[in-house]
Amino acid sequence: MSDPFVVVGADAAGLSAASKFRREAPERDVIVFEMGRWISYAYCGMPYFIEGRIERLSNLLSLSPSDVDERGIDLRRGHKVVAVDPDAKRVTVETTDGETFEQPYGDLLVATGGRATLGPFDVRGLDGAFTLHSMDAAAAIDAYIADPAAYDPARADVDAVDRDRVDYNAALPAPETAAIVGGGYVGVEMAEALVGRGLDVHLFQRSDRLLPPFGEAVGERVAEELTDRGVTVHTGTPVEALVGDDRIEAVAFADGDGGTGDVDGGSDGTGGDGDLGANGDDRGRLPVDLAIVGVGIRPNTELLEGTDVALGEGGAIRTDEYGRTTLPDVYAAGDCATAIHAVTGEEAWMPLGLTANRAGRAVGATVAGDRSPVGEIAGTAAVKAFDMEAGRVGLVEDEAAVAAGFDPVRETVTAGSRSGYYPGAEPTDVTLVADRDSGRLIGGSIVGPDRAAIRIDTLATALEADMTVPEVERLDLAYAPPFSPVWDPVLVAAKVLNGTLEE
Amino acid sequence: MSDPFVVVGADAAGLSAASKFRREAPERDVIVFEMGRWISYAYCGMPYFIEGRIERLSNLLSLSPSDVDERGIDLRRGHKVVAVDPDAKRVTVETTDGETFEQPYGDLLVATGGRATLGPFDVRGLDGAFTLHSMDAAAAIDAYIADPAAYDPARADVDAVDRDRVDYNAALPAPETAAIVGGGYVGVEMAEALVGRGLDVHLFQRSDRLLPPFGEAVGERVAEELTDRGVTVHTGTPVEALVGDDRIEAVAFADGDGGTGDVDGGSDGTGGDGDLGANGDDRGRLPVDLAIVGVGIRPNTELLEGTDVALGEGGAIRTDEYGRTTLPDVYAAGDCATAIHAVTGEEAWMPLGLTANRAGRAVGATVAGDRSPVGEIAGTAAVKAFDMEAGRVGLVEDEAAVAAGFDPVRETVTAGSRSGYYPGAEPTDVTLVADRDSGRLIGGSIVGPDRAAIRIDTLATALEADMTVPEVERLDLAYAPPFSPVWDPVLVAAKVLNGTLEE
Repeated sequence: MSDPFVVVGADAAGLSAASKFRREAPERDVIVFEMGRWISYAYCGMPYFIEGRIERLSNLLSLSPSDVDERGIDLRRGHKVVAVDPDAKRVTVETTDGETFEQPYGDLLVATGGRATLGPFDVRGLDGAFTLHSMDAAAAIDAYIADPAAYDPARADVDAVDRDRVDYNAALPAPETAAIVGGGYVGVEMAEALVGRGLDVHLFQRSDRLLPPFGEAVGERVAEELTDRGVTVHTGTPVEALVGDDRIEAVAFADGDGGTGDVDGGSDGTGGDGDLGANGDDRGRLPVDLAIVGVGIRPNTELLEGTDVALGEGGAIRTDEYGRTTLPDVYAAGDCATAIHAVTGEEAWMPLGLTANRAGRAVGATVAGDRSPVGEIAGTAAVKAFDMEAGRVGLVEDEAAVAAGFDPVRETVTAGSRSGYYPGAEPTDVTLVADRDSGRLIGGSIVGPDRAAIRIDTLATALEADMTVPEVERLDLAYAPPFSPVWDPVLVAAKVLNGTLEE
Repeated sequence: MSDPFVVVGADAAGLSAASKFRREAPERDVIVFEMGRWISYAYCGMPYFIEGRIERLSNLLSLSPSDVDERGIDLRRGHKVVAVDPDAKRVTVETTDGETFEQPYGDLLVATGGRATLGPFDVRGLDGAFTLHSMDAAAAIDAYIADPAAYDPARADVDAVDRDRVDYNAALPAPETAAIVGGGYVGVEMAEALVGRGLDVHLFQRSDRLLPPFGEAVGERVAEELTDRGVTVHTGTPVEALVGDDRIEAVAFADGDGGTGDVDGGSDGTGGDGDLGANGDDRGRLPVDLAIVGVGIRPNTELLEGTDVALGEGGAIRTDEYGRTTLPDVYAAGDCATAIHAVTGEEAWMPLGLTANRAGRAVGATVAGDRSPVGEIAGTAAVKAFDMEAGRVGLVEDEAAVAAGFDPVRETVTAGSRSGYYPGAEPTDVTLVADRDSGRLIGGSIVGPDRAAIRIDTLATALEADMTVPEVERLDLAYAPPFSPVWDPVLVAAKVLNGTLEE
């Protein structure tokens, strides 16, 4: 056990593990290899930086390299781990200086994260086309949106930033019309961000509603809110290509089935006229000078390709309740790893921030000798779209519930967020999903403009406690006119779903 | 079973029971006797009416008598049930016209509620001195505060209102300085309401902090908020008398030990100078022209005094899991009845709105033949003080925990309500209390200005699920920068308390 704890990746999972390990096992060494220059940044904060709500890129950094040094962690940026030899218990490391060396490990944590999937869209080499999965991308988008004369370089105030890329984008003419490809979190949050920057924003979603994992009620209300705020929402409208030679000129899309926005081939009044699909077929074309692709992420597992490690859901590295992979003394945590789902008890892959932090911390404790479960995940998530808030947890969609062996029954109710007589009461939609046979709550979502998102934690807790719908109906939740009516919307939903279950 | 279901009391519990029964057992009669003129009003909304945030008294009514009629419920206002004969299964009823009659029942629900306790303070006959436990009191206070020339009689727009009392109070000179006696919910909410009406407000609390059942952290932050908003908070300062002949002239109080406000004998700048305790002892005196006494409520159980019904905690009517009293076919629900506490499994008396509604509804179903538990109570409560929000659940204070046989361990943490970089993140104090031996969560409180109150429902759910602190620490709660940091304040508190438990 004299060999060090080696961590690959210096973001949420990796640094949580290294920090926890450092505190618990001060006698052992811990080395963190990070192939890039960035560490410990808030991925989820990037849309708000681009929006301008957050002033400096540095605000998104949780820890600086010197913070990490001070914790007694041997952090080596610009060090890419390219191979793992689980028999010899060592990794091969390449530095940005071109050196290669072997590093023995006692325990290894793979915390390599994920990266944006591009689908058919190659944003590389096309000015004005971006994905949003790195701080350099966030800085570049921010610079690109700004008027060249008005860009403040102090916005990207971190040494690690790709300054050439920022400068290059800052010098390009400011865009006026943006297409966002993908109606998930990133898409919805970027829509708000770009409206905040004064752009004419079009949000394209392949399927017939936004935020599919949040269920129908959330998708509808978020689409309404975006539309009310000036976003043109194109649901059921797959973008097929980013058009342009050096700079993005347009997005080409299959004509959709309606949805909540104008989707009839670019005839939506914002420069689209005259640019309808040239072939007279069912394709449309919208001229844009900014395109952001947010169609998903996938786990970075290439490091273990030479080993016989087992992969699982989503192609992520299979891990057990302690974050152990199928290789001895090799752990994985964060966006590159699977986890156990609280409802199904089965493997799942849901790359989310708390999951990464929590699993990293648990692995750090376990490697230090204090065996700690990484915890189950419930897929709890929240999202903001202007004044609309939404949360989801568990198995919201029928497909997921059926695939897990449940017979899902669902109800959606609309109830007031406060006592009806108290100003500011807002309609809040609660969807609850239960298993017909057992009556167990297996998923839910909440959407509304008044404190709706945080209410999802109530459902997450009920779900992790394996509560049935009758048990949820009898929960003693808080009542106070400014915050909740006598029957909280969650209780109303449970009452209605309980009635359906009893039929 | 041909005899009707008789309900005594037409507020939350009574009308919930009658309505549920009516739907479930359409073939049986249901009669609701209400001694007064008011039915189904929102007690918790009264401070907001007085504040002026709610325009009309009628806004606080959930159901009108005609609504109740339309539901097929035989509602008889002005009918006071004065005796119960459980052997003969009949009640004696007196009408406001002076008639008396016997009414047989098949099942009886006592839903007589509670009433304000006065302590040593007799507000009757003293102009400008009030308790707040009826709609007539709310209307009278509202009228009293108004400038006689400016009072809008349409504020009290309900036929049932005691118009003479309203008119009398409206004609009195408007007050300038108010003393609120009691720093519980009513006191805190009334302090905000009276500041909203432009009064100079003094809040007197016997013990050394406000809102004792919410714990220390809540008491302190609410006191700070009130002080910041101009309320003079006198903690540790028992009011000993309301002074005045026809109209309130002053409150006399024992000199306190400091607390957050000026408590040194009325020398707080607002007309108090020169009115210090005349005897040179430790009494103070504050001239006021409005006093509101909110020192608690007690259950109305007089109706059953002639029977051998068992009373329990707080002198309330003892009930079992179905709301049954110790008398055959006699139920009790709402503020007059005990309930089972979710943490202790023992009898408790906590008069709260949801408890009444839920128990009433359950009794209605049970009497109709669908046996339904009334549900356990966790003492979940929330309160607003200007921009400060707080919630509490379970056993927060050591005394309560020890009395229930627990060995309480507690931690209070202050954590951000949002990601630190996201504007609007506010310090949120979470207190968790656990039992040392079992590690079980037995209580908690949350206070802060950003969505703090509604978060208490997460703790309420965890507590009702008998979760341990390690289980709470591993909850998959939502993370999204506008609503919660990666580690929600609840998770931070669980982590810290867990560390303490492991010591």
